[in-house]
Amino acid sequence: MYPESLKNLIEAFKYLPSVGEKTAERFAFSVFDLDEMQIELFKESLEDVRNKIHPCSRCNVLTEDDLCSICSDSSRNDKTLCVVEDVKSVFLFEKIGLFKGKYHVLNGLISPLEGINPEDIGIDKLLDRLHNENFEEIIFAFKPSIEGETTALYIKKILEGMSIKITKLANGLPIGADMEYIDSLTLERALSDRKEIS
Amino acid sequence: MYPESLKNLIEAFKYLPSVGEKTAERFAFSVFDLDEMQIELFKESLEDVRNKIHPCSRCNVLTEDDLCSICSDSSRNDKTLCVVEDVKSVFLFEKIGLFKGKYHVLNGLISPLEGINPEDIGIDKLLDRLHNENFEEIIFAFKPSIEGETTALYIKKILEGMSIKITKLANGLPIGADMEYIDSLTLERALSDRKEIS
Repeated sequence: MYPESLKNLIEAFKYLPSVGEKTAERFAFSVFDLDEMQIELFKESLEDVRNKIHPCSRCNVLTEDDLCSICSDSSRNDKTLCVVEDVKSVFLFEKIGLFKGKYHVLNGLISPLEGINPEDIGIDKLLDRLHNENFEEIIFAFKPSIEGETTALYIKKILEGMSIKITKLANGLPIGADMEYIDSLTLERALSDRKEIS
Repeated sequence: MYPESLKNLIEAFKYLPSVGEKTAERFAFSVFDLDEMQIELFKESLEDVRNKIHPCSRCNVLTEDDLCSICSDSSRNDKTLCVVEDVKSVFLFEKIGLFKGKYHVLNGLISPLEGINPEDIGIDKLLDRLHNENFEEIIFAFKPSIEGETTALYIKKILEGMSIKITKLANGLPIGADMEYIDSLTLERALSDRKEIS
């Protein structure tokens, strides 16, 4: 029914997350409204992202160079390391712009249930860094979940004996939440971790 | 913050309808999960859609050839013409597969309020066809709106005196609708166009 190339483009858009037939069709039709330069940018960036971008050799953040812009930024504090579960988390932190230390990106979190073991998420590379660089604090910034807790505890255990402060992100009520929609685990954590008002 | 090529890809995804920053980022990151062949299909189809597809010289349906597959299909009934406001409508009809006649795609609908006049939507090309081919019925399949009614009435008036049956899609209750959510205009139309149960 559709011309061949349009059919292919619809298929291509369906590769994207949560894009089904209808949305892919809408996207494909919208391509007719783009000008030549926009199509070029689209095509080139698809190719470049594929060919030029790779994980930073030190911290795994995505970069077009050997070291990412964060690792090679000497103005950043190299005493504090924030360990995250994926590259997207780094970009989230960089958006708020409050953290001025370094990052290390794991390849996911340990999950015995899904058969994901410590060696699968690149913990060796992290340990190498911890031994070679002089961090005073490492912050685990994982999603609040069993997998996050497991991964944090596992690494903490390995680091026992090293004089390094180990912290994790606070849990508690998200700002702006309605009390009635807070789940009981979060409420429990918010209560036990309550903070003195100074 | 993002590497250059990733930033460009995010910009490119933002060209798509109702895709904002967050969704574009999600799409861009998902590109890392595609294999080389999928990226190729994506790039090629973007280019092909741009370069190979154009309106059918007769009916304006999108095609890679001079005449679209519908116009060149001699098994289709060439006595009935369905006039639609855009190419997407043709694909909608073809999906249900019940209409076996020919199509003509206008370039939108007449809208004096938005300054869209009959000459802007390509009515001349339609009139040429009506004079050169031997249609017995033309069906207006426009969206139910002032613009749709205006366009249908305008063309009907021009065709006065020609022995051609002019029809339009039925209005009424959409199948599966809850009565309480039916707007009053639709209900009015459903009542005045009520059909005898045979």
